[in-house]
Amino acid sequence: MRADLALVGFGNVGRRFATLIDERRTRLRTDFDLDVRIVGISTGRHGATWNASGVDAATAVACAEQGRSLATLHPFDAPADSVDLIARLGRTPGGLRVVIETTVLDIHAGRPAIDHVRAAIAAGCHVATANKGPAAFAFAELRDLARAAGVSFLFEGAVMDGVPIFNLVRENLPAADIIGFRGVVNSTTNHILSALEDGDEFAPALARMQQLGIAEADPSLDVDGWDAAAKTSALANVMMDARMTPRMVKRTGLDEGSAGRARRAMAEGRRLRLVASATRTADGTIDASVEPVELPAGDLLAGLRGQANALVLATDLVGEIAICQLDGSLTQTAYALLSDLVTIRKRAASAAPLR
Amino acid sequence: MRADLALVGFGNVGRRFATLIDERRTRLRTDFDLDVRIVGISTGRHGATWNASGVDAATAVACAEQGRSLATLHPFDAPADSVDLIARLGRTPGGLRVVIETTVLDIHAGRPAIDHVRAAIAAGCHVATANKGPAAFAFAELRDLARAAGVSFLFEGAVMDGVPIFNLVRENLPAADIIGFRGVVNSTTNHILSALEDGDEFAPALARMQQLGIAEADPSLDVDGWDAAAKTSALANVMMDARMTPRMVKRTGLDEGSAGRARRAMAEGRRLRLVASATRTADGTIDASVEPVELPAGDLLAGLRGQANALVLATDLVGEIAICQLDGSLTQTAYALLSDLVTIRKRAASAAPLR
Repeated sequence: MRADLALVGFGNVGRRFATLIDERRTRLRTDFDLDVRIVGISTGRHGATWNASGVDAATAVACAEQGRSLATLHPFDAPADSVDLIARLGRTPGGLRVVIETTVLDIHAGRPAIDHVRAAIAAGCHVATANKGPAAFAFAELRDLARAAGVSFLFEGAVMDGVPIFNLVRENLPAADIIGFRGVVNSTTNHILSALEDGDEFAPALARMQQLGIAEADPSLDVDGWDAAAKTSALANVMMDARMTPRMVKRTGLDEGSAGRARRAMAEGRRLRLVASATRTADGTIDASVEPVELPAGDLLAGLRGQANALVLATDLVGEIAICQLDGSLTQTAYALLSDLVTIRKRAASAAPLR
Repeated sequence: MRADLALVGFGNVGRRFATLIDERRTRLRTDFDLDVRIVGISTGRHGATWNASGVDAATAVACAEQGRSLATLHPFDAPADSVDLIARLGRTPGGLRVVIETTVLDIHAGRPAIDHVRAAIAAGCHVATANKGPAAFAFAELRDLARAAGVSFLFEGAVMDGVPIFNLVRENLPAADIIGFRGVVNSTTNHILSALEDGDEFAPALARMQQLGIAEADPSLDVDGWDAAAKTSALANVMMDARMTPRMVKRTGLDEGSAGRARRAMAEGRRLRLVASATRTADGTIDASVEPVELPAGDLLAGLRGQANALVLATDLVGEIAICQLDGSLTQTAYALLSDLVTIRKRAASAAPLR
């Protein structure tokens, strides 16, 4: 079966996705009868391109990395913008039509990813996004829109990159309920806490993370717990039907005082970790928070150092299960999009929707 | 869609499965359009029963627990044995026909579970087993037989109970390869190692585990590493196409000397764990072993105490992923069979097999 892809966003993740598709082309065909073609790409600052017979991934990547406009690739047919690109994909006949969304996220609003997801669904296209915004701010709405349109809205890369946390819960824990979860889901703050445990002070540790490219130039989204809160909201919305936004997550980040607290905890046999968690309260609402917590040294989350992430799921039938990402990379985020693409293919092979 | 089930084996796991099906009957119907009916049960010492309109699970469980023969439930139509039961299920018209296999395993030979799986496939029935024997000793053969017959052969409960390790790899890591794995997969030996770290000697620790019902009356299968070796073989066969048997796993168990070694490791900041592992060698064969290994205290496996199990997968595209079972119970093993049943249902809804 043919899949026509429009790439909305073509930064590091989008470009790695394009080359990964090329690298695994044979596997996708043999294992899943999936013949993938990138028919269009839109970017924020390097124009857009369209070629119904297929855009060559390597050429497009080279073009973007040299800072040239993608519009130069097929100059007489370039889409005006992402809106035009998605509309064109919607008019493409036959096969699976999939929007791959990897734009830069305004984490306080979930935009523009939410708009791209809405536009894709409205155009009758499936959509896979690497952004947490749509699931964190508007999961129930977008899920219902996608169902009504008969398309898939997927976001496996939104939390823990390529570790298939959403697929695991959706596909592999049938007829079981998630009662709550707790985890370490932000790598930057976990890196900082490891540095503090090793004797660093907060400001120099943060500066070093920035030098190493682990922390952003503006690290406040990580340090203040916003990134973790958005992931917590996404997890709670998807796994526990929470219908919340990141603003409803109680949030405490790290600060200058964290160094002393981390080292004091360590001296007393505990470990300070930025823990994201959610539980269902007696009245059925979801209580979610992100905050530094002192954990016993034997706790699974206490053992996570550096960029490692983990999520402990409390379930009604399988007790506590944990899934851990021991290292992260660009390829993992790109892989999450590839796995979403395979999920879309599998659903197309299914005679009847099961949920 | 209707599913007719024959339960081969009706010990603790089989009985818990029967009651769990009753408890989740509505969920199975609503979420998966699955209408489950137990039409027959065979046991080792309490006879067998058959009722094409459905055996009442609660009645059968009460009967077995009171030590009465199941043959008394429908006396004029009782199957002679498991062979007769499976043949009858094969002749049952319509719906999904599924053998649920939970007999007591001879771990040195994989029997009689392998024979039950073969018989089920030959009768044109799907089969889900809680035993590791079939995947550990005969995975490739049984997989090929099942494919040729157009039925499913599943065994999610064989390793780490209800934690969906096989489903995770098969369904959620598409187009990626498992390069190797290492894990703690035997609860009894991990319990013993925790006790040794707390100051116990080997023999009293083992005796206490037996008193608590954690270790078997004959604990040699656990202590000598046989159980872990069978799980290692099953994992390597399924995830890495190893075509091996448990006898090909290098195996060192625990013994009297383990107490000193565990405490010496601990004093030096390490932890002794019984580690099951497999890697692909340069010539393409699989090198698999079960042995006590001294791990750095920060290693994920070092943090596992008591009955906790974990498996770290090395993949080509997603780096290292770990999945952990933090507690275990009878319900979890029964749940693995329920999840296999749902997998069979999903495959029946799929227009074309994808692999």
